[in-house]
Amino acid sequence: MQHHGRFITLEGGEGAGKSTQALRLARHLAERGLPVLLTREPGGAPGAEAMRRLLLGGAGLDPVAEAMLVFAARREHLVSTIRPALAAGMWVISDRFADSTRAYQGHGQGVPQAVIAALADIALEGQAPDLTLLLDLPVDIGMARARRRGVAADRYEKLDTAFHQRIRDGFRAIAAAEPGRCATVDATPDADAVAARIAALVDERLPAGVPA
Amino acid sequence: MQHHGRFITLEGGEGAGKSTQALRLARHLAERGLPVLLTREPGGAPGAEAMRRLLLGGAGLDPVAEAMLVFAARREHLVSTIRPALAAGMWVISDRFADSTRAYQGHGQGVPQAVIAALADIALEGQAPDLTLLLDLPVDIGMARARRRGVAADRYEKLDTAFHQRIRDGFRAIAAAEPGRCATVDATPDADAVAARIAALVDERLPAGVPA
Repeated sequence: MQHHGRFITLEGGEGAGKSTQALRLARHLAERGLPVLLTREPGGAPGAEAMRRLLLGGAGLDPVAEAMLVFAARREHLVSTIRPALAAGMWVISDRFADSTRAYQGHGQGVPQAVIAALADIALEGQAPDLTLLLDLPVDIGMARARRRGVAADRYEKLDTAFHQRIRDGFRAIAAAEPGRCATVDATPDADAVAARIAALVDERLPAGVPA
Repeated sequence: MQHHGRFITLEGGEGAGKSTQALRLARHLAERGLPVLLTREPGGAPGAEAMRRLLLGGAGLDPVAEAMLVFAARREHLVSTIRPALAAGMWVISDRFADSTRAYQGHGQGVPQAVIAALADIALEGQAPDLTLLLDLPVDIGMARARRRGVAADRYEKLDTAFHQRIRDGFRAIAAAEPGRCATVDATPDADAVAARIAALVDERLPAGVPA
């Protein structure tokens, strides 16, 4: 896709620290003098936020219906928020994007990857992140961290350990299959150490001022 | 698809009388001693009804996002409501189904029919109605009837005449292309006359007791 900004996504399972690290990365880029848009999925646009509430609070949909709803929200997020920001030259950081659907609805819930790929083609028309940071850590550590946050668990956090292991394996398989787009970051160290590692990775992979 | 019940959809533009005729047809089939499930789209299942509120009340989504959301709701409707009813031998009558997306998001809003067909493949896995009744009437009559209902107009009813003409043309093109599945019913006469015509059509096309 032709654009002037850069598109960075953070992916990973529960408790990996994506939201914290997205904020830290936004600060790092802003300190480099870059215009930053920090957003998240599901959500990131008014219509998509309404779909987020359905997804996280709902009683549980058929997995294919859920994948379609996630991509409907993602399409709205892309058209209303991400594309205009990239066109305006911003560096867009999204806390989750399409890899989360491949991992959660695909590896986790058994929706065929071909179905997810077809939905991605329709919704995204080839728009992929310039860089995806996979925050990887063992499931037991991630779930313990998520519990310590002390907020009410959402529907995904309540699923069992075997589900979360499939998610982790799925994310690792995606990163292994697309090393040019993805970088795996060990998320077990403290937040400062992970933030420093991410900043170094982004500076190396996406030097500012170099056209995409 | 292997099932014992029958699946009948009613389609058409605003003010065509779909809801009234769906109820009349349900009564007719019940009088024939058949088990009937009367449902509607968007909606027809708890998760799908929440999506219905987004669709009808929302500020307007990107058309592709809207088509994806409609099919997410339809998938949920199919899996939670329609398929179990058909498997139980019921006659399912749905006030709107996939042809509405072909007409409204496709012909009306310009989403490519190939995109809609791909979404239909994913959501429906080949499940098509046994009979689709297209209630057809001129746009000006339909809009005048919709206004006389006296309820607040939803988002679609507020769109302009040219939009509604594209919807009518779209429905007629669908019915012309699939005469084996579709029957066009002139919806300009009074409700009793239309109900009699529909009852006759259904009795002729779907004689009870004959395996599908």
